[in-house]
Amino acid sequence: MPTKPRRSGRRPGLSDTRDLILRAALAQFAANGYERASLRAIALDAGVDQKLIAHYFGSKRGLFAEAIRLPIEPAELLSQLLDGDQASIGERLARLAVGILEDPATRERMLGVIRAVASQPEVAHTLREFIEREVLGAAEAELGEDAPRRLALAASQIVGLALARHIVELVPLAQASSEQLVEALAPTFQRYLTGPLD
Amino acid sequence: MPTKPRRSGRRPGLSDTRDLILRAALAQFAANGYERASLRAIALDAGVDQKLIAHYFGSKRGLFAEAIRLPIEPAELLSQLLDGDQASIGERLARLAVGILEDPATRERMLGVIRAVASQPEVAHTLREFIEREVLGAAEAELGEDAPRRLALAASQIVGLALARHIVELVPLAQASSEQLVEALAPTFQRYLTGPLD
Repeated sequence: MPTKPRRSGRRPGLSDTRDLILRAALAQFAANGYERASLRAIALDAGVDQKLIAHYFGSKRGLFAEAIRLPIEPAELLSQLLDGDQASIGERLARLAVGILEDPATRERMLGVIRAVASQPEVAHTLREFIEREVLGAAEAELGEDAPRRLALAASQIVGLALARHIVELVPLAQASSEQLVEALAPTFQRYLTGPLD
Repeated sequence: MPTKPRRSGRRPGLSDTRDLILRAALAQFAANGYERASLRAIALDAGVDQKLIAHYFGSKRGLFAEAIRLPIEPAELLSQLLDGDQASIGERLARLAVGILEDPATRERMLGVIRAVASQPEVAHTLREFIEREVLGAAEAELGEDAPRRLALAASQIVGLALARHIVELVPLAQASSEQLVEALAPTFQRYLTGPLD
């Protein structure tokens, strides 16, 4: 076997199957949005049993996060955020966000999502649906009715940091250490998440 | 004359000339970056006298801002920001930023710059050079050595707001009134520009 056949064999290996599902999912999410995309249609397009999707990705939410390569599953981020006292929630979020941007693997995923969102309206639309359905709703249940606005403000600062520091590469941010960034951002997040907003 | 010839006549009108210069400038900035792009080469490419560039755009800085369609000339923004007492500088910046995003014309320019920066590395690179040379340097002279980091932090929140509110269109931000946004953002900018950062 001089070259390994890719995605054309009858019995694809595990990673090929996973990949087939992700490609089918991305196409379905782009075509139909988050809510209307069905796991059944994705399984059909990928030519796999629907149970395999649950096996690999747990849920539609997990599948989406992986398909658009989110750097972290938002439910996971939310649980890390809520695990500790409220007085330091801003610092926890700052450390989580800066940590995602420090690790080359998660940073590249985050920048990829930002690039896709900025250039493809259907990705922006699907991401919005996902965030509103799976993240802000859950946050509201945990943190109260103000939570969606609070998290959205914090998210805006995080994506802005990613863009200014890692896409435009503004020197004062690109040269700042992780600790400097955490200290600059923590009070912002603390107020967005727990302080008076108006 | 059934159809009006566009950009092919020997004696183009004023708006055509302006447009020719902008196109030549965009190409030069993309190819050579902000610093190395020369007004002489741009005039040559556009087939116009170099004095016309000064006439239409004032300076290389003005030409760049117009060529990449910045929603406001940064020197102008900086002067508006500094015109008033320091205790309300955060609110002034919040009003300026929210105002740019409320006006459809300036909003579209801002979103266009963000889309270009996110998808074209050479635009990101040229914009960085421009900001560092023309904006952060001037800010440092006016506001002290910490100014570049302070303005870069504020800029990151502004572009993040534009992206989250107008590209992803997160509902809690898209539905917030201008006044709500100003109140949410003003203390962030106040601290970034004048408060302790670490």
